Amino acid sequence: MNDLRVAVLGAGGMAGGELLRLLAGHPNVSGLHAYSHSHEGKPVHAVHRGLRHLLALDFEAFSPSKVLEDADVLFSALPHGKSMSFLADLTDSELPCIVDLAADFRLHDREAFERSFMPHTCFDLVSRYRYGLPEAFRNDLKGHSRIANPGCFATAVQLALLPLAKESILPVNPAVYAVTGSSGSGIHPKPGTHHPHRHGNFWAYKLLAHQHEPEIVQTIETVTGQKPSIRLLPHSGPFVRGIHTTTYLEHEIYSDLDAETLFRDYYSDHPFVTVTEAPPQVAEVAGTNHVHVHVTQSQRELVITLALDNLVKGAAGQAIQNMNLSLGLEETAGLQIAGGFPC
Amino acid sequence: MNDLRVAVLGAGGMAGGELLRLLAGHPNVSGLHAYSHSHEGKPVHAVHRGLRHLLALDFEAFSPSKVLEDADVLFSALPHGKSMSFLADLTDSELPCIVDLAADFRLHDREAFERSFMPHTCFDLVSRYRYGLPEAFRNDLKGHSRIANPGCFATAVQLALLPLAKESILPVNPAVYAVTGSSGSGIHPKPGTHHPHRHGNFWAYKLLAHQHEPEIVQTIETVTGQKPSIRLLPHSGPFVRGIHTTTYLEHEIYSDLDAETLFRDYYSDHPFVTVTEAPPQVAEVAGTNHVHVHVTQSQRELVITLALDNLVKGAAGQAIQNMNLSLGLEETAGLQIAGGFPC
Amino acid sequence: MNDLRVAVLGAGGMAGGELLRLLAGHPNVSGLHAYSHSHEGKPVHAVHRGLRHLLALDFEAFSPSKVLEDADVLFSALPHGKSMSFLADLTDSELPCIVDLAADFRLHDREAFERSFMPHTCFDLVSRYRYGLPEAFRNDLKGHSRIANPGCFATAVQLALLPLAKESILPVNPAVYAVTGSSGSGIHPKPGTHHPHRHGNFWAYKLLAHQHEPEIVQTIETVTGQKPSIRLLPHSGPFVRGIHTTTYLEHEIYSDLDAETLFRDYYSDHPFVTVTEAPPQVAEVAGTNHVHVHVTQSQRELVITLALDNLVKGAAGQAIQNMNLSLGLEETAGLQIAGGFPC
Amino acid sequence: MNDLRVAVLGAGGMAGGELLRLLAGHPNVSGLHAYSHSHEGKPVHAVHRGLRHLLALDFEAFSPSKVLEDADVLFSALPHGKSMSFLADLTDSELPCIVDLAADFRLHDREAFERSFMPHTCFDLVSRYRYGLPEAFRNDLKGHSRIANPGCFATAVQLALLPLAKESILPVNPAVYAVTGSSGSGIHPKPGTHHPHRHGNFWAYKLLAHQHEPEIVQTIETVTGQKPSIRLLPHSGPFVRGIHTTTYLEHEIYSDLDAETLFRDYYSDHPFVTVTEAPPQVAEVAGTNHVHVHVTQSQRELVITLALDNLVKGAAGQAIQNMNLSLGLEETAGLQIAGGFPC
Repeated sequence: MNDLRVAVLGAGGMAGGELLRLLAGHPNVSGLHAYSHSHEGKPVHAVHRGLRHLLALDFEAFSPSKVLEDADVLFSALPHGKSMSFLADLTDSELPCIVDLAADFRLHDREAFERSFMPHTCFDLVSRYRYGLPEAFRNDLKGHSRIANPGCFATAVQLALLPLAKESILPVNPAVYAVTGSSGSGIHPKPGTHHPHRHGNFWAYKLLAHQHEPEIVQTIETVTGQKPSIRLLPHSGPFVRGIHTTTYLEHEIYSDLDAETLFRDYYSDHPFVTVTEAPPQVAEVAGTNHVHVHVTQSQRELVITLALDNLVKGAAGQAIQNMNLSLGLEETAGLQIAGGFPC
Repeated sequence: MNDLRVAVLGAGGMAGGELLRLLAGHPNVSGLHAYSHSHEGKPVHAVHRGLRHLLALDFEAFSPSKVLEDADVLFSALPHGKSMSFLADLTDSELPCIVDLAADFRLHDREAFERSFMPHTCFDLVSRYRYGLPEAFRNDLKGHSRIANPGCFATAVQLALLPLAKESILPVNPAVYAVTGSSGSGIHPKPGTHHPHRHGNFWAYKLLAHQHEPEIVQTIETVTGQKPSIRLLPHSGPFVRGIHTTTYLEHEIYSDLDAETLFRDYYSDHPFVTVTEAPPQVAEVAGTNHVHVHVTQSQRELVITLALDNLVKGAAGQAIQNMNLSLGLEETAGLQIAGGFPC
Repeated sequence: MNDLRVAVLGAGGMAGGELLRLLAGHPNVSGLHAYSHSHEGKPVHAVHRGLRHLLALDFEAFSPSKVLEDADVLFSALPHGKSMSFLADLTDSELPCIVDLAADFRLHDREAFERSFMPHTCFDLVSRYRYGLPEAFRNDLKGHSRIANPGCFATAVQLALLPLAKESILPVNPAVYAVTGSSGSGIHPKPGTHHPHRHGNFWAYKLLAHQHEPEIVQTIETVTGQKPSIRLLPHSGPFVRGIHTTTYLEHEIYSDLDAETLFRDYYSDHPFVTVTEAPPQVAEVAGTNHVHVHVTQSQRELVITLALDNLVKGAAGQAIQNMNLSLGLEETAGLQIAGGFPC
Repeated sequence: MNDLRVAVLGAGGMAGGELLRLLAGHPNVSGLHAYSHSHEGKPVHAVHRGLRHLLALDFEAFSPSKVLEDADVLFSALPHGKSMSFLADLTDSELPCIVDLAADFRLHDREAFERSFMPHTCFDLVSRYRYGLPEAFRNDLKGHSRIANPGCFATAVQLALLPLAKESILPVNPAVYAVTGSSGSGIHPKPGTHHPHRHGNFWAYKLLAHQHEPEIVQTIETVTGQKPSIRLLPHSGPFVRGIHTTTYLEHEIYSDLDAETLFRDYYSDHPFVTVTEAPPQVAEVAGTNHVHVHVTQSQRELVITLALDNLVKGAAGQAIQNMNLSLGLEETAGLQIAGGFPC
C-alpha cells in the first residue's frame, strides 16, 4: 500500500485544493490526479497558488473510465448534488476506496436529506457508504471501501458532544454556537465573502435551519438510541481557516461528573483530538488535522469549547484519515503536518 | 442647556477617546476638557489619531477642584476601581451630572461587586447612582444627576433579554453567547490583542466567570422580581469594533408567542434599538449608537441575535445618551452619527 | 442654496453608497434621489447596510427627464463608459451641477483616454467638464457646472506631487508606490476581493499600466508646462478603506530646500490636506475627507508619504467638495465628519 | 549527520518558535533544546501554541557549557545586542555550527554597525562569521561553521537586486518599497502591533533610516565592487506573515535587456527562489522558505516585485538553509514544507 494512486474530483475547489496539499506529502501516495472540468489543462498552482512547490500537476478532465484506470482511491470534492451523479456508477465499481466529501451519501433518512438538500437520484446507493467520523465509528470504517465524509460544522459539533452522548448524559436538545472562517464558503466569490463586507464584520446565518443538523442527529441517535433535537447556530467570522464551537449544557447530573476526565478518556486513543487545559483557539489548529476541545465546569454547568480547521479536520484531512482507515494504513499517515501559527 | 461644559476623566483611554469623538459633535456642548495624567500637555490627537480635525484640545491634569470650575458634566472613563477613588468626593458635590463608565457604581449588592472586582472603598455612595440603561430605566434616569453606565457586554445581553423579561417569559437560566472586537480590551497592548495572535483567530474566555453577569442579573431581577441565573459566554473575535450576541431560548410558551411583535412593541419608542428583518451584522452598526436585534422563531424556539458597537452603545454613546436624559436634552442629541460601513 | 435637491446615479455601487452617506448629513441638501436599475424599489439600506438610520429612501429607476424634474445636482457614480452614455444628453441640459465620478470626462487627450479605457462616444462633451481636483484648480471649479471627479489613486498621487510640481522641482519621471484597500474594487465580489484570498495577503497589480497615470500626467503638465512621465505602482492591501502612497525622490536641488515648509505653504489654505509631523496612517483618515501628507527629508532625498480614504477624498467626498465649489457653498459643507478610528 | 542535536537560544521569541516549528520536521535532526530564561520549565507549546503536536519539549535555562554538552548546532534567535554577549565565548568553541539570527555579526564595517545599532563589545569576532545569504554566497557558506543570518527586509531586497548587481546594471541608488506583516515586530505586544491599531491600517516607518540598509549595501558592494546608496522604504501592513517588496528601476541599458531571462538564469540553481509569471502574492509563500520574484518590463523600465515569509526565508528557514550548507546537508533538507494558503 505504498504506491497508492489517488484521484481528486472537484480539484479546483477549496476542499479539492486542500486534499492536494495534504496528499502531496502523504507517504503512501505515489501518484495524483486532479480532475476539474473548468480548469482542464491548467497547472494546479494556477488555481491553488500555495501548491506551486508541492506538486507539478495539471488539471485533467474527468471520466468514470479514466478514474478506473488512473486511481486506487477517489476523493470527490464536488458540490452537494453533483457528487451523487458522478459517483452513481463508480460506487458499484471495483475502485478500492471512495471518499465523498459532499452531503450526498451521509444521511440514511431520505426525507431528512431531501428536506435539507434536493431530490436524491440514487438513494439506494446511500447504504453502501458509512459515515466517516473516525472518533465515533472507527471500527466500522476500517477496511470499508465507501465513506461519506462529515460536514465541517457537523464534525465539530459531534466531537463536542460525543463523550457525553456515549454516557447518555447529553441533554436531548443542546444548542451549539458555531463560527466559521470564510474558507468555508468555497472558492467562488460571493457577497458574504466580499472582503469589504466580511472584514471587520460578524453575523449569524441559517439559524434554526442549518443543513448539518440532520447528520449530527443521526450520529447521536446511533450512539444513544434516542433521537435528540440538536440546534446548530452558525456564524460567519472575519478569519479564513477554522471553526470554533461553544456548547453550554446544564444538568443536575453534572454535579457528580468529572467532565474533563470523561473527555480525556473518550479521546485517549484518538490521535487527532486533544483535551486542552484552556479554551482552544482557532489559530492554534489552523492548517492541521488536530481538534482541541476544552471543558469548563461549574457544578451542574458545562461549557464545551472546540476548535478545528474546517478545511482539514472539517474536510480534506478527515477524508484522508478515512482513506487511511479504509485501506488499513496508519490513521495519522500524511496528517502529521505543522500548522502555520502565527497566521 | 446649549452651552454645556463637559469634562472627560480617563480621556487617554479607548472609551475616553470615543467620548471626545462624540462630544465634539454634540450640539449642546460648548466646551471640552480631557483629563489624563499620563498624557498631560500632549494634544489629544497624539493619542487618538482620528480626532485631529474634530477638536483642538490638549490633555490636562485632573483635580476635583478643577472639575468643579471647568465643567457641568463629568464623564469618568477610568478603569474599574480607579473611578471610585476619583469620584468619592465629587459624588456629593454640586456638579450637575456625573456619568461613570466603570463598574464601580453599577451593583447594589456589595458582595456581588467585590466577588467580581475588588473591595469597595465608598460603597455608601453606590445608592446615589442609577443604572444607566435607558431602554430599561429611562424614566428613572431623566433628571437624575449620578449615573452608572452599563458594561458593554451587559448592555448587549440586557437588550436581547428585556422584552421577554418584562413579560416574565424569559427562562430562568439563559446562556448568551457573545463576541467582542479587540477595542474592548482597551488602549494598552496586551497578549490577547497582539496582532500576530488576534488576527485570524477566535477564542472563548472567562467562561462561567464574566464580571458582567451580576449587573445583568440585577436588571432582570428588577424587571421580573425574580433572580435569574444568567450566563454570559464571551469570545474574542478578530475585528476591532462591535459586540454580537446570540441567545437560544426554548419554552413551550413561545409556541403561542409572536416574538418579533413583542420585540417591536418593546422598542417602539426607543430610538437606538431597531428590530431588523434579518440577523444583524456588527459592521452595520459600527461607529454608531444603534443596536440591531433580530428574532428567529420556530415554534417553541427563539434565537435572538443582536449587534452593537462596544465603544458607542456599549460605552461612550450610551454615556452621552444618559447625560442627555439626565439634563433633559433630546435623548438622541449628538448621537445621530453616520457609521463607516464598509469598514 | 439651502434646499438643494440632489440625485445620485449608480447609487447601488460603493461610491454611490458613500455619496448617500455624506449627502444625508449635508446642511444644504434637502432632498435626495438614489437611482439604480438593478435595485429599483428596494430601500437603500438593503444594499448599503450602514445607511439604515441616516436616510429613508428607496432606489428609483433613472431617466434623464426624471433627473431634470427631481434634481438640482446630479452625481454620476456609474462605471467608466456607462457615465458617458447616461450623461451625453444631460451635459447640455439646464441642470445646475453635474459631477461625474467616472473617468469619462477627465482626459482632454482622446487618444490617452481610449488607450486606457474604451472608445469615447461623445468626446466633444469632454471640454465642458473641468477636472475636479480643488487643491490644484479650485478657482476654475468655483461656479463651474460640469466637473469630472478625479480617480482615487490619481487624487493621492497628485496631492503628493503638486507642491513640488508648482515650483518646477519635481523630477520628470517620478514613480509612486500606492496601496489601496478592498473597497476600491467596487461592490461586486471578485476573485481579488474574495475574503479567503485577500485576507492576510498583499500584491502588486497593473504595474506600468494603470489607467490613472494619464490624468496625473495631464495635471502635472498643466501645472508645469512640461509633460512628465509618471509611474503609479498600485498594490492591493488587506484592509477596506484607504489609500497610502509613498514617493521617493532624489535631486541635488533638494539640498537647499525646506520641503516641509513648501508643503505647508502650498496646503495652508486647503482645509482637507494637512502636513503631519509623522508619516500618516490610513486608519487616521478613514471615513473622512482629510488627506494627511508627510515629508521625510535627508539632504538631497525626499520621501513623501500620504494617506486618504479612497471612498471619501478619493471619490464621494471630493465629489461633494466639487459640488460645494460649483455652487458657491462653503467648501467644507457636509464634509466635517468624524472618522471611525479605531476601525 | 543524521543525528544532529540542535539548540535554539531565544526560543521563546517569534523566530525561535519558527526555528522549532521547522526543526521538528528536519530529517537530520534527532534532538532539540529550547533555551529561554523567561520561560524556563514551561512546555514549548505554552508559548508557541501551534507546536503542541510537533514536539514535546520544555524550555530550559541556557548556559554556554550546557550548549557544548547538548548540541552540535546552535541557533541564536536573541535580540540584537544580546546575541553578541551570549555568543562571545561560544564563537571560539568547538561547536560545529553556529547560526546567529541577530544583526550582531552581519556587518564588517564597525562604524556602520554601531551607527545603526549599538556599541559592539566583541567586534573582533565578526570576521569569524560569514553573511548567510545562500543565493549570493553559497560557496562561501558550504562547510563554514559561523554564519550571520541576514535580516528579513535585507533578504528580500538583496534577492530583488542581486541578478542586476551581478551584471553591474543596477543603478547606484535604488529605492525599494517594502511591506512587512506584524510578526516582524516580535512576540511582545507593542503599540504598533496593538490589534485595534494595526487592523485595517497601513503606514510607513523608519524612512531613510532603516537598520537593514547597511547589510544590503555591504552585499551589493561585495558583488559589484562599487558602493551603492540603497534606500529601503519600510511599511507596516495589517497581515501577520510576509514581506513584499517593489523596486522601480529605470535605465537606458534596460532597453536591450531581457530581464526575466536574466533573473531566471541567476536563480536557475537556487531551489528557493522562483521567477513567477505574474506579480507574487504574500500568501502564496506564507509558511514556506520560498521566494517568488517577478519582473515587469517596459522598454527602459523594470519593476521587480518579490514576496517571502519574513519568519521563514526572512529568518528561521534561511537559518536552517545555512545550517544545511554549513554541515554539508542537502540545502533543502527540512524546508520542503507546505504553506497554509488560503490563510
